[in-house]
Parts: sequence; C-alpha cells; structure tokens
Amino acid sequence: MKKKAVFYHAGCPVCVNAEQSVLGALDRTRYDVEVVHLGTAKGRLAEAEKLGIQSVPALSLEGQVFHINFGASLADLK
Amino acid sequence: MKKKAVFYHAGCPVCVNAEQSVLGALDRTRYDVEVVHLGTAKGRLAEAEKLGIQSVPALSLEGQVFHINFGASLADLK
Repeated sequence: MKKKAVFYHAGCPVCVNAEQSVLGALDRTRYDVEVVHLGTAKGRLAEAEKLGIQSVPALSLEGQVFHINFGASLADLK
Repeated sequence: MKKKAVFYHAGCPVCVNAEQSVLGALDRTRYDVEVVHLGTAKGRLAEAEKLGIQSVPALSLEGQVFHINFGASLADLK
C-alpha cells in the first residue's frame, strides 16, 4: 500500500513553485500524492489545522507536517 | 543524467526529522541526493549562502532552495 502525501497550498507563487519542484521530486511509486488548495477548499482548513499546519505551502508525509518556505499563514485563508 | 538534490542540515532534531521523512520520499531514480552537515562541514557554508539558504534544514533541488520548517539560522553555524 502506498504512503500518503498531501500538499496544502493557496495558489500563491511561493506555493506553485514548491508544488512543482518538491512534489515533482517525490517518489510516486511509494507515495499517493494529493494536492489541496486551501484558498478554495475551505472545508479542509480544519483538517490542516489539526495536522499542525500554520502556513502554506506545507507538505504532510503520513501525517507529519513540513512547512516549506512561506507563502501565506493559515489565518489569512479563513 | 540524474538531477541534483542537496539537503543542508546541522544535526538538530528538526533537521534529522526532515532528513528522514522528506529525503526518504524523494525519487532516487531521478535524483542524486547529497547530505551536507553545515555544523561540521563549515567549508560548505559559503556555497549554502550563495544558494540563498538562510536556515536549516533546507533542500536544494537543482539549485532552487526550499527551507523546511526551522532548525537553526545559518548565522548560528559560523
């Protein structure tokens, strides 16, 4: 079974850049990758907060959160 | 030819955590991965600064820098 990777972003240039590069480098044979746009999918904000995400772009690998650079804080997306 | 990924760290818990998870998720069939410990390899600090790295852990994908969470600032490693 593949591991789960979720990339949370908000469509800003920092996010798009990280999405293309970092997500592009992941091993898709081992990871199922989902991309969540928190600017439009506001229903996923609670889930992101629960994971401990404070800003986007952020990458969750099996529930562990890694904030990548800084695009926008989660508070600004509400 | 493989693309180049360099992970800069300083041995702190934040770095080790990111190294294991993020580096572990990269596609090694497409990326040659090098790990640089800036706390011990101080001769690589200039290279890291030139890339635009301000804190560790940081991941460079083909020269593009992504700061992952925050472990230590580069200034603290000099």
